[in-house]
Amino acid sequence: MTVTVVGSIAFDRVKTPFGERERMLGGAATHFALAASFFADVRAVGPVGDDFGDAEYEILRTRGTNTDDVEHVEGGKTFFWHGEYHFDLNTRTTHDTQLNVFETFEPKLSQASRDADVLFLANIQPDVQRQVREQCERARFVAMDSMNLWIDIARDSLVRTIETVDALLLNDAELKQLTGEPNLLNAARAVMEMGPRIVVAKQGEYGAAMVTRDGSFFALPAFPVETVVDPTGAGDSFAGGFVGYLAAQDQLDDAHLRRAMAYGTALASYNVEEFGTERVQRLTADEVTARVADLARITHFEDAPIQLRV
Amino acid sequence: MTVTVVGSIAFDRVKTPFGERERMLGGAATHFALAASFFADVRAVGPVGDDFGDAEYEILRTRGTNTDDVEHVEGGKTFFWHGEYHFDLNTRTTHDTQLNVFETFEPKLSQASRDADVLFLANIQPDVQRQVREQCERARFVAMDSMNLWIDIARDSLVRTIETVDALLLNDAELKQLTGEPNLLNAARAVMEMGPRIVVAKQGEYGAAMVTRDGSFFALPAFPVETVVDPTGAGDSFAGGFVGYLAAQDQLDDAHLRRAMAYGTALASYNVEEFGTERVQRLTADEVTARVADLARITHFEDAPIQLRV
Repeated sequence: MTVTVVGSIAFDRVKTPFGERERMLGGAATHFALAASFFADVRAVGPVGDDFGDAEYEILRTRGTNTDDVEHVEGGKTFFWHGEYHFDLNTRTTHDTQLNVFETFEPKLSQASRDADVLFLANIQPDVQRQVREQCERARFVAMDSMNLWIDIARDSLVRTIETVDALLLNDAELKQLTGEPNLLNAARAVMEMGPRIVVAKQGEYGAAMVTRDGSFFALPAFPVETVVDPTGAGDSFAGGFVGYLAAQDQLDDAHLRRAMAYGTALASYNVEEFGTERVQRLTADEVTARVADLARITHFEDAPIQLRV
Repeated sequence: MTVTVVGSIAFDRVKTPFGERERMLGGAATHFALAASFFADVRAVGPVGDDFGDAEYEILRTRGTNTDDVEHVEGGKTFFWHGEYHFDLNTRTTHDTQLNVFETFEPKLSQASRDADVLFLANIQPDVQRQVREQCERARFVAMDSMNLWIDIARDSLVRTIETVDALLLNDAELKQLTGEPNLLNAARAVMEMGPRIVVAKQGEYGAAMVTRDGSFFALPAFPVETVVDPTGAGDSFAGGFVGYLAAQDQLDDAHLRRAMAYGTALASYNVEEFGTERVQRLTADEVTARVADLARITHFEDAPIQLRV
């Protein structure tokens, strides 16, 4: 199975209470690809500049991600983000965002990328997401992410993109903002009215919840990590685990969707243990499956009959 | 089994996006008692004023809560809280707090209340909590709640109270504030260094997490409620379900503690469905067990072997 992901490939400058990195490989497509490549063949689509070298390609190709459609823009500079996380790592300040080669990005997918079974539209301008969506007619499953910026300045376009996908993965607060519904169930239903049959609310340190059109609700806490070093990319690693797992399955029933949530949660939890891609680069398959098993243990309780007073 | 709870018995004036109540019975001890009385004999301890009448006693005595130690202060007025919840029900503004009879409250427990097997110290001034703790020498399990106010103005006293209990239930943010640890695992460990062997972080709409001294971690999402009408008392209903369930058990091992989390979650979810005590007053045992069963379903996933790429 092949997954095509379109999204940012970036250099990140990040400071957290545990240290800083002046310039490391980041971007949604990068984090997604590193996670999803545990499960499926991944093809990454996105623009990079002259400053993007062999070292970065090598990281991106960890576990075999295909970079044929990573577009090198001559004379351009790679997308750059500079952010800082504060004491509790739940709030961050963006010091600088340089779109650079993304400013004029028009995705041109190779036939191989167009033919992918599964497509993930990482958080980029919703018009661009839709262009890619239209090129991938054969995808049997399409998922997407977005962010508050597009809800603020391009809501109509965003909704038109949402209409074309099977699953929307969005931060909890953004889901509420998009729909004007403070209640998660109602917000998810409002999204499903637009088209998707699966809505995943990413809740950061509290985990993630999923609502599906058949009325099923499922929620998982985040895996408790001793030291969260850098949350950058956690949501994209989650998406990579979630979408990647589904890409490798024959069916997308409730049991599989729940397991996909677990794999997403596992990948996200490893992502935050170190800076950027550092932990997931050297992550092993055994570590992934072990964490999913741990996650099953720490969320399980055995219901037992009890006599209550009336 | 008998549970003694000491805490506020109050009149609440509450406004939420779904309506308002000018004056309804509230208070931590009230919400706790209504929930815990599904599982055990409950004895409520707290002061009320001349404005506290038969109608309020009747609600408090739902499912048999004993009110012999509800102290009527002649010429006094019952504790009063006036608050307003905003659009997403996660933030609230306190418009008025009148301590009234609580200002001079010195708990004098009857022998029957002192002899309780289980004690819950709801959120009140930590010196007063400790006075009660010292009167209940025979309790085999003691749990407590608190709030940011006491961390701010009476931290030393609060820590001395925490030293004497088995379990601390606290809002997530308060747990971090108390310990100066933004990481939940580290915050819980810091509390366990003080004495308790069980720490429960209440996470509002995201559920609750539990860390125990044996290193066990367990987390449950909140039960997804279609319409959250009024969150007031949800944490106390959670505590009532959690502590009440444990009071009815012979052992407090990990399986029982996890089930206690589920009962707490179930009671809290009913609490928020209507204003104040309205929903839990007429709640049935069957509804409680049904929700715990639902909760087991919406949190369960079946781990299944999968071949990952290396």
